[in-house]
Amino acid sequence: MSKMTIGDYLLTRLKELGIHHIFGVAGDFNLGFLDQIVKHTGIEWIGACNELNGAYASDGYARIKGAGALVTTFGVGELSAINGIAGAYAEYVPIVNIVGTPSTATQNNKMLVHHTLGDGHFNIFADMYSRVTVAQAFLDKTNNAAEEIDRVLTACWLHKRPVYISIPTDVSYIPIDAPKKPLNLVYTSQPEALNQFVEQAANFIEKAKQPITLVDFAAQRFPMQPLILDFLKKTGIPFAALSMGKAIINESHPQFIGNYMGNFSTSGVQNQVEQSDCIIAFGLLLSDFNSGGFTTNLNADSIIAIHGEYARVQKSIYEKAFFYHTIPALNKRLSYRYSGAIIHTAVPEKILPEDTALRHERFWQLISPYLEKKSIIIAETGTSLFGSLQIPLPDETTYISQILWGSIGYTVGALFGACIAAPHRPTVLFIGDGSFQLTAQEISNIESHGLTPTLFLLDNDGFTVERLIHGATMPYNDIPAWNYTKLPHIFSDNVWSTYITTEKELAHALVERQKNKHKMAFITVKMDKMDAPKLLIQIAKLMAQRNQYN
Amino acid sequence: MSKMTIGDYLLTRLKELGIHHIFGVAGDFNLGFLDQIVKHTGIEWIGACNELNGAYASDGYARIKGAGALVTTFGVGELSAINGIAGAYAEYVPIVNIVGTPSTATQNNKMLVHHTLGDGHFNIFADMYSRVTVAQAFLDKTNNAAEEIDRVLTACWLHKRPVYISIPTDVSYIPIDAPKKPLNLVYTSQPEALNQFVEQAANFIEKAKQPITLVDFAAQRFPMQPLILDFLKKTGIPFAALSMGKAIINESHPQFIGNYMGNFSTSGVQNQVEQSDCIIAFGLLLSDFNSGGFTTNLNADSIIAIHGEYARVQKSIYEKAFFYHTIPALNKRLSYRYSGAIIHTAVPEKILPEDTALRHERFWQLISPYLEKKSIIIAETGTSLFGSLQIPLPDETTYISQILWGSIGYTVGALFGACIAAPHRPTVLFIGDGSFQLTAQEISNIESHGLTPTLFLLDNDGFTVERLIHGATMPYNDIPAWNYTKLPHIFSDNVWSTYITTEKELAHALVERQKNKHKMAFITVKMDKMDAPKLLIQIAKLMAQRNQYN
Repeated sequence: MSKMTIGDYLLTRLKELGIHHIFGVAGDFNLGFLDQIVKHTGIEWIGACNELNGAYASDGYARIKGAGALVTTFGVGELSAINGIAGAYAEYVPIVNIVGTPSTATQNNKMLVHHTLGDGHFNIFADMYSRVTVAQAFLDKTNNAAEEIDRVLTACWLHKRPVYISIPTDVSYIPIDAPKKPLNLVYTSQPEALNQFVEQAANFIEKAKQPITLVDFAAQRFPMQPLILDFLKKTGIPFAALSMGKAIINESHPQFIGNYMGNFSTSGVQNQVEQSDCIIAFGLLLSDFNSGGFTTNLNADSIIAIHGEYARVQKSIYEKAFFYHTIPALNKRLSYRYSGAIIHTAVPEKILPEDTALRHERFWQLISPYLEKKSIIIAETGTSLFGSLQIPLPDETTYISQILWGSIGYTVGALFGACIAAPHRPTVLFIGDGSFQLTAQEISNIESHGLTPTLFLLDNDGFTVERLIHGATMPYNDIPAWNYTKLPHIFSDNVWSTYITTEKELAHALVERQKNKHKMAFITVKMDKMDAPKLLIQIAKLMAQRNQYN
Repeated sequence: MSKMTIGDYLLTRLKELGIHHIFGVAGDFNLGFLDQIVKHTGIEWIGACNELNGAYASDGYARIKGAGALVTTFGVGELSAINGIAGAYAEYVPIVNIVGTPSTATQNNKMLVHHTLGDGHFNIFADMYSRVTVAQAFLDKTNNAAEEIDRVLTACWLHKRPVYISIPTDVSYIPIDAPKKPLNLVYTSQPEALNQFVEQAANFIEKAKQPITLVDFAAQRFPMQPLILDFLKKTGIPFAALSMGKAIINESHPQFIGNYMGNFSTSGVQNQVEQSDCIIAFGLLLSDFNSGGFTTNLNADSIIAIHGEYARVQKSIYEKAFFYHTIPALNKRLSYRYSGAIIHTAVPEKILPEDTALRHERFWQLISPYLEKKSIIIAETGTSLFGSLQIPLPDETTYISQILWGSIGYTVGALFGACIAAPHRPTVLFIGDGSFQLTAQEISNIESHGLTPTLFLLDNDGFTVERLIHGATMPYNDIPAWNYTKLPHIFSDNVWSTYITTEKELAHALVERQKNKHKMAFITVKMDKMDAPKLLIQIAKLMAQRNQYN
């Protein structure tokens, strides 16, 4: 029986999940484990400037690679990261969150050490994490570390949500048996539930007069895409995408009819969806920003919902009927063929740049033709999100945003993680200046790794999204003015930066960027502080009403 | 009966605690309350680049002004700040942590809104905060908001620890009765406990042959200084300071004998303390970094401990015997007069700058004469902390560090907060490059407010403190190389910056700085990556042993 250390066992298992880079920040309670990471073949340590950025990076990485990992130190490090892990929990992003904790003796003796509250308690922060992770393991000197690691990693993978592992400083070098067989990452559906669901769903679809398919976020988090493509091919039913489901299925697909967001849907889509007598919804989440500010109007009696871990037909919920089995079984069972019309979304006309100031109304249309196939497009909460939602994305694009959790600053870290995950895919971030200031320093790590994304910094003098909601001219929506064009040069010369104010300058910059492909591009786009995509202006009004400030 | 809104009631009460600036980041769930802040006479809104920095700033502010306040938004904002509030909890810094939460209707109807985990639960983050705050209030539409506000603010003030207040968007404008009388911020000691303690302590002191006084952190958090000065004057007993208690009592005081940190104490101090038959300890906390890596050796039977909220003589603990009453009563009761010798710490010789590279061994000695009276001196965890601990500080200095919680990056935010609290006091920050990168952007707010601290950035290519503990040449202790000298000019011209490598350049820079007093000074000090104060090198070895990496 071959032996390995607990640390190496964990790393071996992480590789099975497709994790080859681990993000984080060094701290004295994790240094021993970091040695193991550095020395482990096929795993690379990727330091972040701070733990929150590291959490965001592991989230971006997981959205590309299927899973991510983060290492922080006890107390200070893990608490700095918790907002990032909570976001991953909310949005179903599987992250293995590993915390280096004080030695067993230190904890058992309730020593008054740094990074504690000074009260001898060592479980407080892990307790907090139990609210934003689906499984927790506390590795120790007993002999069940392997089982514990396998248990939580399996939970992470199957539930697509973060897990928590604590490793005391003196535990990661303890030898244990090496894995005998790979992790068991298989969904086990309950056969009866599966059969009942498929029968009920198929009967419902086959009676449908105007069926429609909706694709939303969980169709990406749980890898449903190939299964949904089969479903679409087999049935011919048209589909719309929700905002969080944007580009999960190519927008060039012949059955794609547009974006569904209630009153703010692509023209014609709202009627087609809301008047449907059979809505097959993959991974649907009707949160405020994902539902056009709660303006969707779906009849629950018309819905077949397929989620990662359950399925539903009208009011019948089938637990233990997993997407992995439900969709193929449904595809096999169905003989339905849609024969209605498919009304495609009009592709926006190509427009030519003029010598006028950049405004959201035309900026996104001008940008659209430059986005490449197989891109990663990342949009920060705010004008960037609502602008980018309104343009078609090229095929095989991964669209990353945080529409439910909405933590501003998230995308700078996510950009770093996505670039580490896929350094050769064209990667573009759109972010406003207000959000950028929260996490700006992580640009330095993108540069130091020689990564080459394109960053559009929309410089509109503060929190435009909030100005639209409330307090347009109030000082709390102002931020310090930075020289964004010079900033990335503080970190390295691996960057090309420019500052543009007009449409013609944008066109010129996009050409120049091509000449500097071997570098990161940092393009500051000056915009008026009250200019915003129409969609955002309308949704912001709904938000303000809901908040009832006074 | 005059009326005011719940928001204004809270602000009125915060002013009673001496809070005139509120830090934080705007978010749509707090914008209505931010309006009230902006419009409230005598309170100013101070935006931070991100919530963690804002929490650190409110902590720095509270250490100067006696209390601080932070406003964040639900979920994303409050979780980003939680490490900062946990640090304030650990180190007894009173911060009123105010979170703007979704409207009452949104919460009651379990709406699926942004900044939630998508599960309809609105209490999860507040539950986390219950572990790092001493009181929590959830303001709502019932009629007890005034009582709730008064209850938690009183707890914050008396316990000197953070509290949590949540205000839904639709609650802060509800009118309630204005305060009729000021907050009741009075400690109520139990007379019997007080009398017993004083009697027992006085008898013990009066029998002492070699009494000694120790001053530590809680003597600053609970305002004991004037009472301790009375005690020292009355009794003539010599005193030593712990690291967290540095400069709470002027180091020029005739009874000051030096720093006590176990085996790493100022020469002669360890013997004098540890052989004492009566140690009067004010606010003592023997955490690892505060006790020379647990090398202190105090006989519990020799200790009279006076804390903020209890007192102890040998093994007798008196709850409800508050410093506010115990120290004056003891001073009144005592007739003891110390007649032994007082051996003063040798003041380090003044040295002259040479044309040699800067090293810790001489850097701190060279800096020492330039520190001014009434300064605020802030030292980041790492070489800055352990270097600055070894030099005498001028009178009436406030020394700020985070020796127990030890969250790197803390001091950049704390510097911002301290400068807002006392813009006219000379304020100096010492920080290493590794720590600086976590929170660097907050410099921009220091500049935008026209504040004029001096920042020494010790550029030693990464985490030197960790290199000393473990992994001296490992990549996880490396960080990206920034151009620190140019960085602050990205934010504004309200800064003078320079880069120095030798002792002579340091001397020159200190002269030049005086010519630029109306600006912030940003002085980058190049140091070797393995150079560190001797004290840190020794303590790091103890830490590594305790961690038992392998």
